[in-house]
Amino acid sequence: MVQSMPDVSPTKWHLAHTTWFFETFVLERFAPGYTSFDPSYRYLFNSYYNAVGERHPRPERGLLSRPPLDEVLAYRARITSDVEELLASGTPADADDLVELGIHHEQQHQELILTDVKHVFSRSPLRPAYAPHAAAVGAESPSLSWIAFPGGLRTIGHPGQGFHYDNEAPRHRVFLQAFELASRAVTCGEYLGFVADGGYARSELWLSDGWDAVQRNRWNAPLYWECRDGEWWAHTLSGMRPVDRAEPVCHVSYYEADAFARWSGARLPFEAEWEAASASVSLDGNFVESGAFHPRPARGSGLQQMFGDVWEWTASAYSPYPGFRPEGGAVGEYNGKFMVNQLVLRGGSCATPASHIRRTYRNFFPAEARWQFSGIRLAR
Amino acid sequence: MVQSMPDVSPTKWHLAHTTWFFETFVLERFAPGYTSFDPSYRYLFNSYYNAVGERHPRPERGLLSRPPLDEVLAYRARITSDVEELLASGTPADADDLVELGIHHEQQHQELILTDVKHVFSRSPLRPAYAPHAAAVGAESPSLSWIAFPGGLRTIGHPGQGFHYDNEAPRHRVFLQAFELASRAVTCGEYLGFVADGGYARSELWLSDGWDAVQRNRWNAPLYWECRDGEWWAHTLSGMRPVDRAEPVCHVSYYEADAFARWSGARLPFEAEWEAASASVSLDGNFVESGAFHPRPARGSGLQQMFGDVWEWTASAYSPYPGFRPEGGAVGEYNGKFMVNQLVLRGGSCATPASHIRRTYRNFFPAEARWQFSGIRLAR
Amino acid sequence: MVQSMPDVSPTKWHLAHTTWFFETFVLERFAPGYTSFDPSYRYLFNSYYNAVGERHPRPERGLLSRPPLDEVLAYRARITSDVEELLASGTPADADDLVELGIHHEQQHQELILTDVKHVFSRSPLRPAYAPHAAAVGAESPSLSWIAFPGGLRTIGHPGQGFHYDNEAPRHRVFLQAFELASRAVTCGEYLGFVADGGYARSELWLSDGWDAVQRNRWNAPLYWECRDGEWWAHTLSGMRPVDRAEPVCHVSYYEADAFARWSGARLPFEAEWEAASASVSLDGNFVESGAFHPRPARGSGLQQMFGDVWEWTASAYSPYPGFRPEGGAVGEYNGKFMVNQLVLRGGSCATPASHIRRTYRNFFPAEARWQFSGIRLAR
Amino acid sequence: MVQSMPDVSPTKWHLAHTTWFFETFVLERFAPGYTSFDPSYRYLFNSYYNAVGERHPRPERGLLSRPPLDEVLAYRARITSDVEELLASGTPADADDLVELGIHHEQQHQELILTDVKHVFSRSPLRPAYAPHAAAVGAESPSLSWIAFPGGLRTIGHPGQGFHYDNEAPRHRVFLQAFELASRAVTCGEYLGFVADGGYARSELWLSDGWDAVQRNRWNAPLYWECRDGEWWAHTLSGMRPVDRAEPVCHVSYYEADAFARWSGARLPFEAEWEAASASVSLDGNFVESGAFHPRPARGSGLQQMFGDVWEWTASAYSPYPGFRPEGGAVGEYNGKFMVNQLVLRGGSCATPASHIRRTYRNFFPAEARWQFSGIRLAR
Repeated sequence: MVQSMPDVSPTKWHLAHTTWFFETFVLERFAPGYTSFDPSYRYLFNSYYNAVGERHPRPERGLLSRPPLDEVLAYRARITSDVEELLASGTPADADDLVELGIHHEQQHQELILTDVKHVFSRSPLRPAYAPHAAAVGAESPSLSWIAFPGGLRTIGHPGQGFHYDNEAPRHRVFLQAFELASRAVTCGEYLGFVADGGYARSELWLSDGWDAVQRNRWNAPLYWECRDGEWWAHTLSGMRPVDRAEPVCHVSYYEADAFARWSGARLPFEAEWEAASASVSLDGNFVESGAFHPRPARGSGLQQMFGDVWEWTASAYSPYPGFRPEGGAVGEYNGKFMVNQLVLRGGSCATPASHIRRTYRNFFPAEARWQFSGIRLAR
Repeated sequence: MVQSMPDVSPTKWHLAHTTWFFETFVLERFAPGYTSFDPSYRYLFNSYYNAVGERHPRPERGLLSRPPLDEVLAYRARITSDVEELLASGTPADADDLVELGIHHEQQHQELILTDVKHVFSRSPLRPAYAPHAAAVGAESPSLSWIAFPGGLRTIGHPGQGFHYDNEAPRHRVFLQAFELASRAVTCGEYLGFVADGGYARSELWLSDGWDAVQRNRWNAPLYWECRDGEWWAHTLSGMRPVDRAEPVCHVSYYEADAFARWSGARLPFEAEWEAASASVSLDGNFVESGAFHPRPARGSGLQQMFGDVWEWTASAYSPYPGFRPEGGAVGEYNGKFMVNQLVLRGGSCATPASHIRRTYRNFFPAEARWQFSGIRLAR
Repeated sequence: MVQSMPDVSPTKWHLAHTTWFFETFVLERFAPGYTSFDPSYRYLFNSYYNAVGERHPRPERGLLSRPPLDEVLAYRARITSDVEELLASGTPADADDLVELGIHHEQQHQELILTDVKHVFSRSPLRPAYAPHAAAVGAESPSLSWIAFPGGLRTIGHPGQGFHYDNEAPRHRVFLQAFELASRAVTCGEYLGFVADGGYARSELWLSDGWDAVQRNRWNAPLYWECRDGEWWAHTLSGMRPVDRAEPVCHVSYYEADAFARWSGARLPFEAEWEAASASVSLDGNFVESGAFHPRPARGSGLQQMFGDVWEWTASAYSPYPGFRPEGGAVGEYNGKFMVNQLVLRGGSCATPASHIRRTYRNFFPAEARWQFSGIRLAR
Repeated sequence: MVQSMPDVSPTKWHLAHTTWFFETFVLERFAPGYTSFDPSYRYLFNSYYNAVGERHPRPERGLLSRPPLDEVLAYRARITSDVEELLASGTPADADDLVELGIHHEQQHQELILTDVKHVFSRSPLRPAYAPHAAAVGAESPSLSWIAFPGGLRTIGHPGQGFHYDNEAPRHRVFLQAFELASRAVTCGEYLGFVADGGYARSELWLSDGWDAVQRNRWNAPLYWECRDGEWWAHTLSGMRPVDRAEPVCHVSYYEADAFARWSGARLPFEAEWEAASASVSLDGNFVESGAFHPRPARGSGLQQMFGDVWEWTASAYSPYPGFRPEGGAVGEYNGKFMVNQLVLRGGSCATPASHIRRTYRNFFPAEARWQFSGIRLAR
């Protein structure tokens, strides 16, 4: 029930909000004679859909001692059952589409529940663990190499068949210069080199806003890292552990990703480069189903870790694709309203459900956000 | 577990903190070979005793999802049993005194639990109730009259026998001008006259800081009042109810009490006046034991409602009495550290345990505080 | 000497800072045996060049009562004379380049002096005027039409000959979809339609961050507009004047430009579209040399007002071009450090020196900035 | 023209505001057919007199580039001449009283001009000096002794004859316990002992609010002190000088005065004690007329430095005397509106005009204020 910062929502709220989505966009619209479970929920569990009406302020979600968890679980059971009944009764294609959207929406909140619980636990002096520590898969990471991709006209964006968010469309042509991508994500070991080299104290490595964030927040390492007697430890969903040099670094902001890239003599990829490159690899990776709840060292050769482990910051601002049209109605507020002051991240993380990700998937967060499993892929 | 503003603490925290007081000041000091229930509690449940060590930041008490309630209740059971055992074994007078202090400390937190729960519930759109509404005792309040008291040398402060806080001593002489006290507390009906007369919009009625607070907080009525279709309602521990004109007004700041007094052509009493006058009445009143959890209309004649119902703001800043000496050790931080920027309130409220109050009792809050059961007694 | 908000600098500071640029980057590096005018100026008049050393905090520039204006003018005279002497003595190409950069840098500050003075004057209850009001050039504006441009591969960015900022290079290919640009900037009359239609109260028209800005800042019109007895007036560099419906609207944020475009059923142009389209028109326009210090109604036909009058917000985030390389040394901090959280504006304004603008010129400001002469060109 | 913090006003503003006082309260009321110098001044140069109408916000006084200094000086000349003419013409007693009040009001602002200029200069990296350094009068200070005063009934407050502020009346009886006052103000040398003993790092020495202020503001010495290479220097109105151990310490907050007293095993005097004790000494001291603009070491024996040098923090909250009645009309806002959240200071300082001070004079500032010449007198 705890909200440790405005970006974080209590787990109970996530459970109710994802249910609210089905109630509001599916049942209220398509179930004949539907009566709401509790009219106050329309207000309490709305997130940012202005078109649906007033909503409870985000930073005050932690104040909701009522309804208690039992009631929220009853709400979920009732709505799930009502939706199943509706689907069984034969529904219009519109309703099917909204149910599918609701499922993908819930998958996003499954990831947020993990990142939010991780943040909440990090603020407790007792540092609770969410899950036991899974045995490490590989003790070393392959050395970093560069994979070359030719320039020219490419087509990116979702082709339209099958589920996708509106922000992935329309599919369109872009012109790319030739580029190279790093074979794997940046490791904690490599990032420790940046830290040891005074990375957080050298203004010339940072964007101006990034340098301000470093000063203001007194950052000297990724979120959740702590230096104890000269050794770096990290808070994880399995409790405090020594930083593993072979694992991908995560919980870095865009500013840190950008500064690390500059320090490395490289840069971050543009999202079109990333998407073009991703065509060459399968959609496999360390997703939430692995039960690790933490990124793992890379394995194999060629282009690795494009999917899962850590969301990869790109150098692309989150903007509409040419010809972008938001969905109609309130669900049109899902993506388009956020197309400013955010950066695109690609590929999913160790907290993302495997069936949720796509090559064309565009995640987005402000440059200062660190509580997601966000990491670094270099380009040049 | 909710913390709705920095001044409010979660109930679970109150339960643990009052127990921590006994563990820290009684058991750790007097129980031979005592081992702490959980060493982290020393940090988690300290409130402001710097001498005891570092403490968890007050505004983050709402983040403590751990320890869970069960564990806190087990903590209470274990400490209570240990203290009982210690007392049974024959203890030095010092220990007895600290146990007695711990009991009075816990009584203060019993009152805070009620005022804090009231605040938390007020922030929930569902407006839960803590207790059923007790039937009103009297539909009208006696008309206000003035009781005269002569000037001259008086002696105030606690004489020293029996339990009292250090801030009530030493007993000392003060010179008072002749004064009059209102026979009862200001009622909601009287306060509605101030509201209707534009009281919140007339700067000449307010202290400069008070006028700032009105503007900054957009106050237009006491805390918890809401105007619905032209009628004033109030959030109470029994839910939303229409404002009862006969009841004492409560949840007003010092600024509002002072402005109301100025509007009335009167003033607030000094604490020495209040204490001198209180000698003429018994210690009875509407305390927490009545189960009303709300102030009730005055009854009878003469000087009424001096005890219980609402804490009465005085015009006296909370300062040390001449010759004041704080208790030795960490418990000396109990009162003396707060002797600036606060005003004295007298008489206890409908949330105060009856055995907690004394004629010499000095409660204190900043001028802007409104979440206590604070009301107004006029003087002239 | 006044600083009315952190973004604004006092005129005296601009005068000294532009001189500091020549002293620091030209004289200290190329003038043999150069001794600084006053060593404290290196600290006082640095703006954001971390590589040059510590600097006086931006929001405190208004505290600099010393050095007085006389001394700053003496500083300017001495540095100008020293630079002239250096140039006359025959300098390496590097020095010539930095002198040229310094001149363009000073032109930017000439524009800022005007926008900053305008803001300072707007905060004075006396509303002083900077210059007399120039007679209006045209009472009406031509009706808006759409100019079509074909899609395909285009080349944008500066070709490299002649002066340009590092952020305009390298020249590179982009693929554009076919698009249309509005023939002229949006007028105050058109914007009044948006205001009258409740534009500032309809969340569905706004980006999420934009809606927050509207609420937080209580925006209900462009910066400097005031409603007096039902009529809109605007603070200008010639004092308060009724809003002229034929003039381009200015002092709007990106959020307002974007919301207006959405309300119009159109969108903002991408910077590549803007640059491609600009090839068809000459570099003429209402620049600072006109003496109007204010945008003027469009005239003529075809694509109008691409240059001068108002900076035009584009939908493009300010990002590095593919292959971008910042200048070496401290002047490399000029542009590259700001490539996040800003949007590109194009075309110059009525406060821009005519010789300062280029088709490839990329100005940039955060989405919330309004004190520049920023306006709206629609696309679709 | 600079405003370095909200509490500080530009000198130009002080000059205009003191003139505004005469115009508003004397000329507008008593000069037949008076026409205002400039109607906008009524708004611009009002300070906090709500009854006079709206006023320019205090923190924005530094934005007033207009009217320029010349015009303000012309305003002063014209109002002075008008008041002289009015007085020469024979005026009612009311007008005479208000002129006298206006003169005392202006004396207060003379002191503020010095303290405000001192603060402004301290924020300039150039650290300008206001006046040359006067030669030190005495190199040593007499050792501190204690002067005893008996307890009993005393009468304090102004007796009513001659000019005084409303807050000094009515004269009334108070009962005092026997007490002792330190023979002189605390010196920098003594205060350095507190600093060296870790005074700023020992929470047990501080009031709770004081400890918060120390943490929040990172105080480690009085305002204007700087440690350079292990030596303490202080910014003065004659520029930076090494801290003189013999001088009274000044620019300390109430919190620091209180913590120092606790560290010394003493306390601060109550204002009634101070006033009773002051009867034994003459009104002489180091006032602004000395030209030192800085406190000087004590000289002589017995009770020294009661007047001049530094304002002495008392332990008394600024409250109304029993029977206090504010002046009628807008000038009634002069004092009474501030009677909460402030402490009384006594005795005047090196920036106070000698003719301004009285034994009954009650100055008042919030506990955190440090930019006045405020120092420490111990009591016990």
